[in-house]
Amino acid sequence: MSNDLKVNPQRLQTMLDVIAEYGATANNGVTRLSLTQEDKQARDQLKIWSEEANFSCRVDQLGNMFIRRPGRDPNLTPVLMGSHGDSQPLGGRYDGSYGVIAGLEVLLTLNDFQIETERSIELINWTNEEGARFAPAMLASGVWSGVFTPEFALSRTDNDGVTVAQALQSIGYAGSEEAAVFPATAYFELHIEQGPILEDEGIAIGVVYAAQGQRWYEITIDGFSAHAGTTPMSHRRDALCGFAELVSAVEQIGLQFTPDGRATVGMANISPNSRNVVPGRVFFSVEFRHPDQKVLIEMEYALNLAIEKLAYRQLVITSKCVFDYAPIIFNENCVELVRQVADTLNYSRREMISGAGHDACYINRVIPTAMIFIPCIGGISHNEAEDILAEWGEAGANVLLHTVLKSAQII
Amino acid sequence: MSNDLKVNPQRLQTMLDVIAEYGATANNGVTRLSLTQEDKQARDQLKIWSEEANFSCRVDQLGNMFIRRPGRDPNLTPVLMGSHGDSQPLGGRYDGSYGVIAGLEVLLTLNDFQIETERSIELINWTNEEGARFAPAMLASGVWSGVFTPEFALSRTDNDGVTVAQALQSIGYAGSEEAAVFPATAYFELHIEQGPILEDEGIAIGVVYAAQGQRWYEITIDGFSAHAGTTPMSHRRDALCGFAELVSAVEQIGLQFTPDGRATVGMANISPNSRNVVPGRVFFSVEFRHPDQKVLIEMEYALNLAIEKLAYRQLVITSKCVFDYAPIIFNENCVELVRQVADTLNYSRREMISGAGHDACYINRVIPTAMIFIPCIGGISHNEAEDILAEWGEAGANVLLHTVLKSAQII
Repeated sequence: MSNDLKVNPQRLQTMLDVIAEYGATANNGVTRLSLTQEDKQARDQLKIWSEEANFSCRVDQLGNMFIRRPGRDPNLTPVLMGSHGDSQPLGGRYDGSYGVIAGLEVLLTLNDFQIETERSIELINWTNEEGARFAPAMLASGVWSGVFTPEFALSRTDNDGVTVAQALQSIGYAGSEEAAVFPATAYFELHIEQGPILEDEGIAIGVVYAAQGQRWYEITIDGFSAHAGTTPMSHRRDALCGFAELVSAVEQIGLQFTPDGRATVGMANISPNSRNVVPGRVFFSVEFRHPDQKVLIEMEYALNLAIEKLAYRQLVITSKCVFDYAPIIFNENCVELVRQVADTLNYSRREMISGAGHDACYINRVIPTAMIFIPCIGGISHNEAEDILAEWGEAGANVLLHTVLKSAQII
Repeated sequence: MSNDLKVNPQRLQTMLDVIAEYGATANNGVTRLSLTQEDKQARDQLKIWSEEANFSCRVDQLGNMFIRRPGRDPNLTPVLMGSHGDSQPLGGRYDGSYGVIAGLEVLLTLNDFQIETERSIELINWTNEEGARFAPAMLASGVWSGVFTPEFALSRTDNDGVTVAQALQSIGYAGSEEAAVFPATAYFELHIEQGPILEDEGIAIGVVYAAQGQRWYEITIDGFSAHAGTTPMSHRRDALCGFAELVSAVEQIGLQFTPDGRATVGMANISPNSRNVVPGRVFFSVEFRHPDQKVLIEMEYALNLAIEKLAYRQLVITSKCVFDYAPIIFNENCVELVRQVADTLNYSRREMISGAGHDACYINRVIPTAMIFIPCIGGISHNEAEDILAEWGEAGANVLLHTVLKSAQII
């Protein structure tokens, strides 16, 4: 196959723009939480485009969509690619969507040039990757890979008590197919970097050979809510003041393990959250990330030490690890294929560790997997200002095209 | 009048218990936000008891209720007493309600003993003292005292966008009488201390001669929301980390001005408040209280200094004072009357400064006013665990009875 074979950049951009309309926000971002009406609209659009191109679309019990371009030999295992269509609240238009739409562009390019492959190629749109509506993240790829049971996933609830099962029913994406791994040759996921490195160094393609481990905690601080005007400072057991010390401690832990360490308090709920009441309770999240499991253990130790140091405040603090996700090494054959394709197409490349979790991290447990990163402007993601240059998006789609083609074997 | 004249403690307790059922919470507290259905039920009950005792009940345009026991001479100005029936979310059963119900018990006791007074006595149930549903606090007594216009008050909204005017209509308490001061001899407000001092010192009656000044601020910190996994610590502009420093600074300011100073961050909203997103914005409240205006200014200065110290974080911080409430000195004649009554009835007493704002603080601008405090257990208030001993409640009601009687002149 000629290296001149390229995706259609205008069509790619048009499809990205159309999808970004579903859940569009005032500042050019998207709020498209998993299994909402906005997510349904984007899914419906993906299905319409697929059916127009004569690709079949199966949906499994968790709403994962499998868009198939058949190969010559139906007995051969397919090549998979994919990403997710859900977003963070006030998130960006490329996180996830780019991988799905670029995958569709790859399939459409094969149609344009009437290219037949030995193996079938399947594009997957995974459900609830972000974990913003239903915790934990990467829920449906986790089920597919055997990390979670379907029953666990279907019974997760959002903040309003709606279960995944109910949300799937309400948007008509509770499919009949079992959510479970089937034999496949490889899985490739194309994604924006969501960090500043590729842009800073002027490099087109990130060859992602590993992903950071993560540990997420839920911490509850119980003090005593009291009248803000009548309760002397010395009589207070202020949960928010304890929380403030821990937020500062978590930041210090992140700074201690630069450049690879990440330490974040992203969510906190304060109770009763009234201006003139000393806060009695704070419930919040902590997450640590690092590519080295030993460092993650050190970070956890430092967190526990910071909690112990709060003893003088007479608060009751409970902490539990709710997500423990070991560092990941992707499949070397798949990674090497991405390297070769980038070189053949004359794109600059760089080895990278993924700082984020991705569906690929779970899929890697059951199918040989690698990821491809492209730069994003200012490293900004999970933010309405997330953006890419069209040429970056095109380069990534071309690498995905040739990687998948090599894997699916052209006749 | 004999010092043996006493309220009926059983009836007082029974009425307190009945009122505490409206909005009762699982842990013995109440959630009875202003102008909700729970507030309506408590108001209706108060009206039923009043009408059974042949007291008239007028309602003004802000829902303030005026329950009148007529005196012999309708041309004399009345003596007023009162408090409020609304509560904090997950608040206590005595904050406000105790003053209203003890006032009714005073009127019923006068009926029991067929005591005629020269002046009429009016019990007032003020609307929206807490400010928990509609900011600012003491809204309706503020209108009555000329601090706010009726238009301002009626157009305040709750978190769902419901105005005070709409809420009054929906519970049937939009009265026809203008909410404006009328001539009166005095106003007395009986309240639980909501702090630990009286109980700690074993004293029955707090003679409240002053109230703390308050300054409330709204502060917004704008940073940049970013992906928690891919954004290096060095690239972050984390609004929550800045917030944490300010919470600690506010606590230090309170500690610097002990024992009278109070400094509280009670409310904070974090955006986007997602576990794996670096927070881009925090909106929060700060409040300072102190009986000396000069100290309040020093506290504000220290807050601004703390904000300036955050410059290194490259956050955008805006702070505005939304409530500036000067320290109050109550009417010396009224205060002296409370002192004399406590002594005559042989209750131990202590001079006090109110740490909280009360309707009495506004009424004091237009009518000679004093307050009477009783202890509460552990100083706990704005909390479901708020509680009193029955004998404390009885003592306070007896002091209110004789203070009002002396003021209204027995025939």
